[in-house]
Amino acid sequence: MSSSDTLIPPARRGRPKSRPEVERRTQAARSEDMQRRILDAAAKVMSSHGYAGFRTAEVSRVAGISRGAQLHHFPTKDQLIVATLAHVYDQALAVSRQRAAAVDPARDILDLLIEDAREFFFSRHFLVAVDIVLSTATEPSVREQVLDIARGARLPVEQAWGQALAAAGIPADLAPGLLSIMLGVVRGLALRKLWDNDPKRDDQQFAMLRDMARAYIAAQGKSRGPKRG
Amino acid sequence: MSSSDTLIPPARRGRPKSRPEVERRTQAARSEDMQRRILDAAAKVMSSHGYAGFRTAEVSRVAGISRGAQLHHFPTKDQLIVATLAHVYDQALAVSRQRAAAVDPARDILDLLIEDAREFFFSRHFLVAVDIVLSTATEPSVREQVLDIARGARLPVEQAWGQALAAAGIPADLAPGLLSIMLGVVRGLALRKLWDNDPKRDDQQFAMLRDMARAYIAAQGKSRGPKRG
Repeated sequence: MSSSDTLIPPARRGRPKSRPEVERRTQAARSEDMQRRILDAAAKVMSSHGYAGFRTAEVSRVAGISRGAQLHHFPTKDQLIVATLAHVYDQALAVSRQRAAAVDPARDILDLLIEDAREFFFSRHFLVAVDIVLSTATEPSVREQVLDIARGARLPVEQAWGQALAAAGIPADLAPGLLSIMLGVVRGLALRKLWDNDPKRDDQQFAMLRDMARAYIAAQGKSRGPKRG
Repeated sequence: MSSSDTLIPPARRGRPKSRPEVERRTQAARSEDMQRRILDAAAKVMSSHGYAGFRTAEVSRVAGISRGAQLHHFPTKDQLIVATLAHVYDQALAVSRQRAAAVDPARDILDLLIEDAREFFFSRHFLVAVDIVLSTATEPSVREQVLDIARGARLPVEQAWGQALAAAGIPADLAPGLLSIMLGVVRGLALRKLWDNDPKRDDQQFAMLRDMARAYIAAQGKSRGPKRG
């Protein structure tokens, strides 16, 4: 949907070759701007009202655009919903990748991983994605698109953190399993928040999770021999 | 909704005192039987179609009863849905309590806990409950009832397993946190199943989770001193 190229405003794109070329680019950039404006508004509406309460009319209102302009870019509600999720998952992917690539060496890598996962799984957008997948269990089309978006955005995040764990000295044979369990806890506690919201207890649990992972890594190191004693 | 009393068929309830008494009991028992029949059918429909696809007409069909009989017991769709969740959560609570109270001493208590949690969180009914809570974010009535059902059925399960962990020698100051993290992982991996269903990998992850918890318990024991060496 969005390439890095389209993030550059047309004015900075170097010297125009010819007038029609400029116009084509300007129009494409305008179209991209409009789409982003619609998607940012749709993300807000989705975040407040979830899937069931998502109204396309509210999106045009929040975006401050005409209904026609919105329908031109996203003719159906499902198209808009799918594009919105792709948009917010893309943004989350970019942020997570950046965090995994630039970890603060003064802090525990496991804490950093948990913080990043918490920001994603505790966001309303993750819950909206779950909502859509569960609500559309009998309508495969939207459901499959949402699953593809989530897979496409989350697998690179897991890879980036897998590399970060390895770079921080976590044994390569333990890293994938640890990563999956730690993400599993964050996902599971995000869901528990619906029943019983207690951020302070979550803090304690995440600290305990980090300690469990550290104890496991240490125990595995010892049972392998060379570093013993 | 159901007391243990109502599970005893009327014929075995001892000698009747008087005819009106018998008739009252028989009628109450019949009514209970009918309700249970409707709720068992509704649980099947809910399990297949989720919240969005839940049709009350299909429930009467599956239960093999008249629409009128169903409406007599559950006048609205929401009432039927709430009663169905209460029914399946009640059943799950009874099973989990029994498992926690009668653990096999030959097996690792943490494995038994994970198995019990897996049966619950990996069931379709748990996902339907999540579905309802997410879908009804802007309709507080049903949502709150579902949250109450879940809390009412899950807190006693957590208490029962907390006692079982303590009885198995897990230090009392670690048990609640461990329990919550372990349930968190199972809940989180249950959700992941929607994106990426791989039961064999789940088996490996749950074994690793048990080992992490064991390593943590051992490390905590050592750091406290007396058992060292």
